[in-house]
Amino acid sequence: MRMLYHHPLSPASRRVRIALAEKGLDCAFTVEKPWERREEFLALDPAGDVPVLVEDDAVVVVGNAILEYLEECHPDPPLLPGGPEQRAEIRRLATWFDGKFDREVTENLVGEKVIKRLSRQGHPNGLAIRAGLANIHYHLDYVAFLSERRNWLGGDSFSLADIAAAAQLSVIDYIDLVPWDNHSDAKDWYARIKSRPSFRSVLADLVPGVLPPAHYADLDF
Amino acid sequence: MRMLYHHPLSPASRRVRIALAEKGLDCAFTVEKPWERREEFLALDPAGDVPVLVEDDAVVVVGNAILEYLEECHPDPPLLPGGPEQRAEIRRLATWFDGKFDREVTENLVGEKVIKRLSRQGHPNGLAIRAGLANIHYHLDYVAFLSERRNWLGGDSFSLADIAAAAQLSVIDYIDLVPWDNHSDAKDWYARIKSRPSFRSVLADLVPGVLPPAHYADLDF
Repeated sequence: MRMLYHHPLSPASRRVRIALAEKGLDCAFTVEKPWERREEFLALDPAGDVPVLVEDDAVVVVGNAILEYLEECHPDPPLLPGGPEQRAEIRRLATWFDGKFDREVTENLVGEKVIKRLSRQGHPNGLAIRAGLANIHYHLDYVAFLSERRNWLGGDSFSLADIAAAAQLSVIDYIDLVPWDNHSDAKDWYARIKSRPSFRSVLADLVPGVLPPAHYADLDF
Repeated sequence: MRMLYHHPLSPASRRVRIALAEKGLDCAFTVEKPWERREEFLALDPAGDVPVLVEDDAVVVVGNAILEYLEECHPDPPLLPGGPEQRAEIRRLATWFDGKFDREVTENLVGEKVIKRLSRQGHPNGLAIRAGLANIHYHLDYVAFLSERRNWLGGDSFSLADIAAAAQLSVIDYIDLVPWDNHSDAKDWYARIKSRPSFRSVLADLVPGVLPPAHYADLDF
């Protein structure tokens, strides 16, 4: 069976787990702590980061290329639906959340408060955490802006844009730092994501030593 | 005619310019200084970063999505040649250079030494520059490792993997910080890239106030 090397607090890993479930693809999972720089793992991916997918036939696919690979091999249901223009818009938003949101929010919050502790890489930087807490409002406003104008973030259909945004927000929600009370439109969109069967494994995540808040897995949060 | 908003020292912009030339697509160009946060530009792309492509029919495509979009609309010649596995390998390497190389080398060298000055965002950080100068060796070794085993970095054919690597290295070479003398295999690969007609406009780049070294545009460097 195919195997995904992932970490429960890695948004890029969650993205692939949700995509695999949306496409109904069987997969086994191994939790990898990339900061341990395990030799067998580095042999799979010299960049040493999660996620890494190993197919039955030993094909190795890493990082963001996994989503494009799954879409090419298993196009149904599509996570990049529509024509080139629509697909470009979905990829733009996926890059927004994987890149901009990750740098401006997730690295500052999950990176500083949790990953540094788990990987014993020093103390949290208070300035970075404050920046992350300030930046998240702007991104939640953007989610609201998009979801007021479209059925899903990338257009009429559920897509990789929703998966990328939800993967980021779900790790922040795991450490209870999403200010949902001030962002009801973004919260409504996230409630729709949470109720999808493909999101179940993400809501069941438990990281040893880091407990999620009670509302984390609650569909009526 | 389509219009590309770009900056000559942005590797992501150079990537698109090379790809457009490889595919023989006409395009007009506008130099954009993203740090000026021009309002009309932010209206095109709320992330406010280069490159941004505007098509004749006003379709707007931004960032890394441009390459996938061009490949879908103009598949010949392919820059993501081969089947899903081959394409995943090319995308892995493109992400390596766009992400890892950019963070570990380009931001530390071009970002600190040039972009900070052009954008008046403070003084160069000597520690970052030293890190960039150290990191580049490891990446040039990786280019050599790949080009010893394959005709081009991503496999038998010239591809987005070569474009992504060359786009990064060319901006470092513009400020004369590539240690070519110690990396002859990587230099041989780069010489082959430099001789491609698609690379001509990159070699003709001139940034006001930042002159390239004599060897920059020389095919026999």
